[in-house]
Amino acid sequence: MRRHTRWSAWLFCPLLLCAATGRAAAQAQLPPNVVFIYADDMGYGDLGAYGARAIKTPNLDRMAAEGLRLTSFYSVSPVCTPSRAALLTGRYAARMGIANMHLSNVLTFQDSTGLPTDETTIATALRARGYATACIGKWHLGHLAPHRPLDHGFDYYYGIPYSNDMKPSMLKRMDEILEEPVQQETLTSRYTEEATRFIEQNGSRPFFLYLAHNMPHIPLFASEKFKNRSAAGAYGDVVEELDWSVGEVLVTLKRLGLDERTIVFFASDNGPWYEGSPGPLRGRKGWTYDGGVRVPGIVRWPGHVRAGRVSDEPLATIDVFPTLMALTGEPGGAALPLDGKAAAGFLLGRDASAPGNLYLFFDKEFLQTARFGRWKIHVARWNVQRYQAGAANQVNETLRTPELYDMSVDVGESYNVAASHPDVVKDLRRRIAETLRTFPEEVQKANADLLK
Amino acid sequence: MRRHTRWSAWLFCPLLLCAATGRAAAQAQLPPNVVFIYADDMGYGDLGAYGARAIKTPNLDRMAAEGLRLTSFYSVSPVCTPSRAALLTGRYAARMGIANMHLSNVLTFQDSTGLPTDETTIATALRARGYATACIGKWHLGHLAPHRPLDHGFDYYYGIPYSNDMKPSMLKRMDEILEEPVQQETLTSRYTEEATRFIEQNGSRPFFLYLAHNMPHIPLFASEKFKNRSAAGAYGDVVEELDWSVGEVLVTLKRLGLDERTIVFFASDNGPWYEGSPGPLRGRKGWTYDGGVRVPGIVRWPGHVRAGRVSDEPLATIDVFPTLMALTGEPGGAALPLDGKAAAGFLLGRDASAPGNLYLFFDKEFLQTARFGRWKIHVARWNVQRYQAGAANQVNETLRTPELYDMSVDVGESYNVAASHPDVVKDLRRRIAETLRTFPEEVQKANADLLK
Repeated sequence: MRRHTRWSAWLFCPLLLCAATGRAAAQAQLPPNVVFIYADDMGYGDLGAYGARAIKTPNLDRMAAEGLRLTSFYSVSPVCTPSRAALLTGRYAARMGIANMHLSNVLTFQDSTGLPTDETTIATALRARGYATACIGKWHLGHLAPHRPLDHGFDYYYGIPYSNDMKPSMLKRMDEILEEPVQQETLTSRYTEEATRFIEQNGSRPFFLYLAHNMPHIPLFASEKFKNRSAAGAYGDVVEELDWSVGEVLVTLKRLGLDERTIVFFASDNGPWYEGSPGPLRGRKGWTYDGGVRVPGIVRWPGHVRAGRVSDEPLATIDVFPTLMALTGEPGGAALPLDGKAAAGFLLGRDASAPGNLYLFFDKEFLQTARFGRWKIHVARWNVQRYQAGAANQVNETLRTPELYDMSVDVGESYNVAASHPDVVKDLRRRIAETLRTFPEEVQKANADLLK
Repeated sequence: MRRHTRWSAWLFCPLLLCAATGRAAAQAQLPPNVVFIYADDMGYGDLGAYGARAIKTPNLDRMAAEGLRLTSFYSVSPVCTPSRAALLTGRYAARMGIANMHLSNVLTFQDSTGLPTDETTIATALRARGYATACIGKWHLGHLAPHRPLDHGFDYYYGIPYSNDMKPSMLKRMDEILEEPVQQETLTSRYTEEATRFIEQNGSRPFFLYLAHNMPHIPLFASEKFKNRSAAGAYGDVVEELDWSVGEVLVTLKRLGLDERTIVFFASDNGPWYEGSPGPLRGRKGWTYDGGVRVPGIVRWPGHVRAGRVSDEPLATIDVFPTLMALTGEPGGAALPLDGKAAAGFLLGRDASAPGNLYLFFDKEFLQTARFGRWKIHVARWNVQRYQAGAANQVNETLRTPELYDMSVDVGESYNVAASHPDVVKDLRRRIAETLRTFPEEVQKANADLLK
């Protein structure tokens, strides 16, 4: 009954009604499908649409041309697990006691950490709205119950439950181990097959597909037909196969007449690691400079999101949850308060600006940097000199002298303007303190000097 | 007599004769003056002409528009001392036993290391050709005799004999200490005053001015009228003052009618350190990724070097010595064999390509990377994982698996293509081994695995 009420609300949404035509009109009572494609460790500069010259990504470039390309889209963490937790819940991982969840490269089956059971994922929330849900690919939020995808709102799971460099390397379908070790060469193509099959099987009902590729996280593997194809070595081959995969998903949606009924997102969980390009950004995976956290962000929804739009408005993965709630029915849907803000009006072109959220970037539970509007503040920049002197494991002995970068003219975070904008620093520190006070006590304690 | 013979050779150089007009014609028997302006730790992306948005550099941008802007110009070391040794001698510092000359931040007056006495600098060579020579600014090649500027071909010296973060901080004129500690706010403007005075006093004879600014090396200081002027904080103010300084030098040359008789170079000794922008390049000062070694490179010589030319041909500081020898008379001029190659034909537009030199980049005596044509090879890339794990002081325990980057499509050194170009790797390793075999035994020993 409750589900029915929500669909009725959807039915009377005037914006979507006027966009619905033909076959789509017949299904207009259905809220839109959602496909979120997540690359692993892909850099801001790895796609043609973002300036890559050595890698050809015609499908992603076309997807961008047919939708919205965000040039200031953030993952709120520079490493895998907290990024994924934040994307799926709309909340910072530092709230969940898993900021320290650095799964080691060799797993033990007693390792029972994972996304807490009281968190609500996009899958849980959309399933409550009648969606078929699937997670295909990398999970990395706990491989044992009650932390598996199946415990967190997904009807279906197929993939490696963690990173592709971790042992034991295994491919699972639901709870069944299909392969050990995984044949990684065909991983991307098998994920794609699973994804298109899921779409085919669920085209008549609303669905949420979370397609989280393991690539281009190392070790790099492409299938036979993509090997030695790019001008960017194994990394480029892998990205070109991911691009092909995106093309397959889009072709499937088109073939099934689901184009205008499906919102497709593309992003990466953090910046590039050893290989891969951060474009003009400073730093890489693991750093909270933008090279570690600013990622490609493409949204395609024909008839709803204007084609060919490019925006430099800051948005982040934490905003995806509330945005999807707004686009698929009523706001809400989560048991716990969200950090994200709904950007539905911005995506649909009703609002010129994004919601103007404050984005926080942590190293474990220690706040490092924040982005707000045109400003990026480093409240605890790693002490680079110590770092270079070999004290990388002492990164928490950080500098607490704020640095301020004006991202509107300094995308590479090269010029500290804190001294000439004390008012901005003060305002940002106030906003940061205000937000941190809503965090668990241990996070407040770790950042005590920011709360003074 | 010998000097006279050389000037006569110059007189009959047809190319220069046809370019000489008016007042310049009357002085055509004189070889061209040389002004080399060197910034300290300035990044590839810090100038408007190289993409900076937060910093305004109208004088350097105009200088580039009136001459040649090199987009693949290298300093052959990512740190100060070996960079300067290589620029002034046309030879790698690793040949000189001073690759390890990392002057500590606190000097002792017993520290008697420095540029060896058997090396020939540009100043020595040009003085032998009748030039007045001055070094104004940072030296950093030994502050005690026999390593001072005055021991290495310079008639005149004014400046801080080393970096501006070193103690005791002192300003010297010749051997006289003028100030201790140095008032750094007015350093750039005083260097500029000294430089223009030297030009005025020597306009009637050929001169070589080596104007080696201490800025924007930290600590950052700009004079009153440049403070808080830029949109890039203290770093930007300092760069804008350096830009003003370049403008003053160019205005002085114009006023004295020396424009067409003076080759002016602008470059930096290595990439940016904490602040400053490497543009789209990977890494910073201290790294042999291009962000540490590729620098702005501008050459202006009206009537000889075509205005508005931009070239991506690789060239480096080691090529400056032989190029200047060719442009000021006969090749040669150095007591020891050079690593650089003369690029006179390329600068003057007679040759479409630069000499195609192999450029080596060392960390101390350990070869790290090399650039040849479109390729950059990493023969001993720092083991980033160890580095991040805190083993930065063990950088010499390096990986010896070559990585290859195609700089023609991958300026950010993001995509290793070694596996798809084994022939290129083999050829480059052969060239590297061939060159390393000409190095002193201790350098060969340090790189033994590259000589197998």
